[in-house]
Amino acid sequence: MSEVLEKAKRAKLAAAELAKLSSGIKNKALQIMAQALEAQTDFLIKANKLDLEAAVQSGKPKAFIDRLTLNEQRIKDMADGLRVIKDLPDPVGETGAMWRRPNGLQIGRRRVPLGLIGVIYESRPNVTADAAGLCLKTGNAVILRGGSEAIKSNKAIVKVLSQASYEAGIPEGAIQLIEDTDRASARELMRLNGLVDVLIPRGGTGLIKAVVEEATVPVIETGVGNCHIYVDGQCDRDTAVKIIINAKTQRPGVCNAVETLLVDRRIAEEFLPVVIKELREKDVEIRGCEETLKIVPDVTRATEEDWDTEYLDYILAVKVVDGIDEAIRHIGMHGTGHSEAIITDNYHAAQKFLDEVDAAAVYVNASTRFTDGFEFGFGAEIGISTQKLHARGPMGLNELTTIKYVIYGSGQIRK
Amino acid sequence: MSEVLEKAKRAKLAAAELAKLSSGIKNKALQIMAQALEAQTDFLIKANKLDLEAAVQSGKPKAFIDRLTLNEQRIKDMADGLRVIKDLPDPVGETGAMWRRPNGLQIGRRRVPLGLIGVIYESRPNVTADAAGLCLKTGNAVILRGGSEAIKSNKAIVKVLSQASYEAGIPEGAIQLIEDTDRASARELMRLNGLVDVLIPRGGTGLIKAVVEEATVPVIETGVGNCHIYVDGQCDRDTAVKIIINAKTQRPGVCNAVETLLVDRRIAEEFLPVVIKELREKDVEIRGCEETLKIVPDVTRATEEDWDTEYLDYILAVKVVDGIDEAIRHIGMHGTGHSEAIITDNYHAAQKFLDEVDAAAVYVNASTRFTDGFEFGFGAEIGISTQKLHARGPMGLNELTTIKYVIYGSGQIRK
Repeated sequence: MSEVLEKAKRAKLAAAELAKLSSGIKNKALQIMAQALEAQTDFLIKANKLDLEAAVQSGKPKAFIDRLTLNEQRIKDMADGLRVIKDLPDPVGETGAMWRRPNGLQIGRRRVPLGLIGVIYESRPNVTADAAGLCLKTGNAVILRGGSEAIKSNKAIVKVLSQASYEAGIPEGAIQLIEDTDRASARELMRLNGLVDVLIPRGGTGLIKAVVEEATVPVIETGVGNCHIYVDGQCDRDTAVKIIINAKTQRPGVCNAVETLLVDRRIAEEFLPVVIKELREKDVEIRGCEETLKIVPDVTRATEEDWDTEYLDYILAVKVVDGIDEAIRHIGMHGTGHSEAIITDNYHAAQKFLDEVDAAAVYVNASTRFTDGFEFGFGAEIGISTQKLHARGPMGLNELTTIKYVIYGSGQIRK
Repeated sequence: MSEVLEKAKRAKLAAAELAKLSSGIKNKALQIMAQALEAQTDFLIKANKLDLEAAVQSGKPKAFIDRLTLNEQRIKDMADGLRVIKDLPDPVGETGAMWRRPNGLQIGRRRVPLGLIGVIYESRPNVTADAAGLCLKTGNAVILRGGSEAIKSNKAIVKVLSQASYEAGIPEGAIQLIEDTDRASARELMRLNGLVDVLIPRGGTGLIKAVVEEATVPVIETGVGNCHIYVDGQCDRDTAVKIIINAKTQRPGVCNAVETLLVDRRIAEEFLPVVIKELREKDVEIRGCEETLKIVPDVTRATEEDWDTEYLDYILAVKVVDGIDEAIRHIGMHGTGHSEAIITDNYHAAQKFLDEVDAAAVYVNASTRFTDGFEFGFGAEIGISTQKLHARGPMGLNELTTIKYVIYGSGQIRK
């Protein structure tokens, strides 16, 4: 039996036990796991050092090394993350609704764990602790497949978490790490129908695309965000500038950062010079449409490709549009259904934008950067879904559960 | 451009318009569509006759011919089905919850259509009207790919429905039928990522398995039901017999019929002869385990394969088990997560079964045959999901929608 299959089978057995655990035991385990991470700081940093040395030797870029690095503070942050999860309400066992049918059957919708969740991710070791904590809280077993560059760190983290959780009464096998980081092991995980209930890819476009292409188990697609801000002709210019600067520069490398600015022709001539000047002061490169270039001549000309690009960088595409209808059309053609915003003072424009833009999160007069489980008040997040099935937008604990119908009868048969 | 791609693109355009329609217009359209089906009875029966002749010539079995047949009554039933859908509440536009964050952002969860739904099915022409009605009611465009044997009937039905709905103000292209019934057209539909938001296969195991294997778009797996009834040692024997007879024989060819009976050893010797006698009077063939054979010697011996077989026929596998724990373990190993029932008078056994059996519908003292959108009170059904993502159990109108977050701001930026 392959490593993947064996570990998935063990995790699936654990899942049946996990589903029965009370919140008390799960919370206690999360607390002990948090303590264990902190207590094992030296062990974790030592393991991480081996990954870091290999990454430096193979010439990985600085940002990559940074994401891979564990230090005392980051280990404390991972532990605190588990404590936050511990303090959230447990959705498992809630019966959202229960009704009685004319024949007397009582039918209830009960929230239950999904079962076994697979997570495929890249080289951030903190995802390991995070995913394990979220799955444990919701009574799910988890099988983790992280990137090869973080394998020694991940092994150390899972060792600490497994041992601590087992001591706290969590069934053995609930947290599994696939140590074989070949492509073949990821592919095998993607095709374990009947064992893996859901697979969540966390990472860049390439990873997510590969999973969507190859997986036969149910997948929740996360993350790609080609987000827009549309500045309506009727709006407060200062608010618009403030929101655009925030959405582009507060953290450009994330999926809810803005990538294209759409400006209503009615105010383009007056507004574009102002906003472009401010953006440039923040080192943002502008790629403008024909009309933008006429107004601010020294910007780079945008190509068709720019409208479809998630830069994740200090670059912003800018396009002048003929009002809200063209803006909505452009978003429909080029958006990825993540986060879209309008800046307007006009009631009807706001309502129209909310109604007609098809995305996980649609904003009026706020930064797209708020699309996030913590900012939405869910207290935690396993990712941001850009598909429409099961979960859309930030996924919190609820999205890691499913329902089952429990039916109380008294001898009913079907006529 | 292929037929599939062209029709999917047209449907996707229609979907954006459909999402904006009021319930009033959609309901009016459903009413006119129902009338049109009835008014065009002769046209539909004539088209159906061509399919029937071909089916007879190619020697299709009687049950197949029956499923394929349209007559006046069945056309009236299709029309009435649309009227039932018309009278159901429209879930689109509901804001299930809205909350305010500390920074003043107001975040609402609004129910919206999925967009473009693909349905792949076999040779029941009534699925065509049913799926079109359910999708229209929920503001979705639909692209239908039915079996080749029903293609002339399906073309006629879609022609009548499209024309009627267009006259009622539904955008052109909202209901699409793929006329090319090659395997390649189904495969193309399964891989239209970015156009098809959800694909629902309706039909036998082979069809569903092919879709799960080959699709890259999100799929809702429906239907396979290897359902169990466990008769606990403490139970009312008459109730048990009555429920078993109902679950096996009221309609054996459907997914919520029982396929395996598990009997507590404590009562096997007394109960098995009684229930087997009654089942045989209804022409049910019994396939028993070793212990069953000791008690009722003249039954066929079950093989390992029987525990995993969805007979969809007058056959029942019977196994004696060592109490509820073995019953739950057996269901965990062999069940398909559809519908499972316990017959018991014992409170603790009932609770344990409801808690520990992992299936879409778990019953105490009732027939498994109730797993159905109408019986659950949803008023309509597009299928029964046996997966855990998005929808589980009977899928009504709600399951044909998704949510989007609408966020009302007043200039908020992320700190």
